[in-house]
Amino acid sequence: MAQLSEASSIPVATIKLYLREGLLSPGARTSPNQAQYGLSHLRRLKLIQVLVKLGRLSLAAAGEVLDAIDSDLPLIETFGIAQRAATRVVDRASIHDEDLGRIDALIEDWHVHPDGCGRYDAAAALTAFRESGLKATDDWYRRYADAALAVAEADLDLVDAQEGRSAKAETVVVGTVLGDAVFAGLRRAAQEHVSYTRYAQDGTGSPPAPTS
Amino acid sequence: MAQLSEASSIPVATIKLYLREGLLSPGARTSPNQAQYGLSHLRRLKLIQVLVKLGRLSLAAAGEVLDAIDSDLPLIETFGIAQRAATRVVDRASIHDEDLGRIDALIEDWHVHPDGCGRYDAAAALTAFRESGLKATDDWYRRYADAALAVAEADLDLVDAQEGRSAKAETVVVGTVLGDAVFAGLRRAAQEHVSYTRYAQDGTGSPPAPTS
Repeated sequence: MAQLSEASSIPVATIKLYLREGLLSPGARTSPNQAQYGLSHLRRLKLIQVLVKLGRLSLAAAGEVLDAIDSDLPLIETFGIAQRAATRVVDRASIHDEDLGRIDALIEDWHVHPDGCGRYDAAAALTAFRESGLKATDDWYRRYADAALAVAEADLDLVDAQEGRSAKAETVVVGTVLGDAVFAGLRRAAQEHVSYTRYAQDGTGSPPAPTS
Repeated sequence: MAQLSEASSIPVATIKLYLREGLLSPGARTSPNQAQYGLSHLRRLKLIQVLVKLGRLSLAAAGEVLDAIDSDLPLIETFGIAQRAATRVVDRASIHDEDLGRIDALIEDWHVHPDGCGRYDAAAALTAFRESGLKATDDWYRRYADAALAVAEADLDLVDAQEGRSAKAETVVVGTVLGDAVFAGLRRAAQEHVSYTRYAQDGTGSPPAPTS
C-alpha cells in the first residue's frame, strides 16, 4: 500500500478510506500484513480522485458511478447515472413554470426524458437570472443550446472512439465531470478574447493585466 | 426590513449579515428603529443571492464583484474580476506543462493574458483527464474551444444589448456565474438527446426513464 500511495501521490489514509467505503477493491493478500496492488488499482484510484476532488462527488455518489462503470448496464444508463451524480441538486419547486417552458421550447426537438436533470438545471439558472432583475434574450439561450449540442456530439464521438465497454463507460463518467471544467475554462478565455477584441482601445495588442 | 425580507423571501438575519458585511447599503433611517428600503435594495439583494447561493462565492468575493459593478472600471476589467471570483482556485503547480501547451495551441489566435484564469482552469482539467488514464483527442478539445467561442460571443452580445453601464456590468457578473449553470444543464440534456439518437434501440421514441 505504501508503494500504491507513492505511485499515486495519494496518502495511505485516503486509500484506506476508499477501501473501507468499497470504492477500491482489496489487493491480493500475500501475508497477514501485505497485499499486492496492481496497475488497475492505480488507475481506479486516479479515477476516484477525479470524481471526488474535481467533481466534488460524495463518496456514496462516487461509489454509485463506479458501480455503473463496472456493471454491464447500457451506456445510455451509465450516462444518466454519471449526470445525476455530477449535478448539483436544484430545488425543483423554486423553478418558475415560465422558465421551464422556455427551456422546453428551446429543446423541443431533442429526445429528453421529462425527469432528466439537465432540463431542470438549465431552467433553475434561468429563474435565478430573471430574479436578479436582468433579462436574457431568446437569442442568447438559442446560441447556448446550439453550443451545448455541438459539445454533446463531441462528447459522444469521444466515447465512441474508446475501445471496450469499460473505457467507454469511464470516458462517459470522466467526460461528464471534467467536461464542465474544460468548457468553463475555455469560455473564460474566450470571453477575454472577445471582450478584448470589442473593447480594448489601448492598441498595445495585449489585454490588460488581471488586477488582483 | 421586515418588508424587504418578505418581498425578497430572504430571512432578516441574512439581510442583516449582508448589511454588516457591506454588501448591501443601509436604508435611509426614518426613526431610531426604522429604515426605508427601496427597489434598488431588493434588486441588489437578489443579485447577492445569485452570487452567494448559485455562484458559491464567499461574502468577501461577492463584495469585490459588487464593488466592480458600482465602480466606473472599464467593462473588460469588470469581466476579469467576475471571472476570478466565480472560478474555483486551481493549483497551478499541479498542471502539466504539456497540458498548458495543448490549451495554448488551441487558443493561439485568441488575445488572452498569460495570467488569465481560463487558460489554467482548462489545462488543469486536461491534466486530471490524462491522469485518470483516459485519452481525450485533439478533435474533442477543438470542438470545445469552438463552442466556447460561440458562447462567449453570445455573452458579449447580451452585455452589449443592455442599456447603461450598471446593467451591462451586472450582466457581465450574472452571466459569468449563471452561464456555467445554463450551459451545464443544456449539455446534459443534449447528451441525453445525442446518446438516445445513437444508442437507443427500443424503438419507443422515448429515452429510458432515469434510474434512481
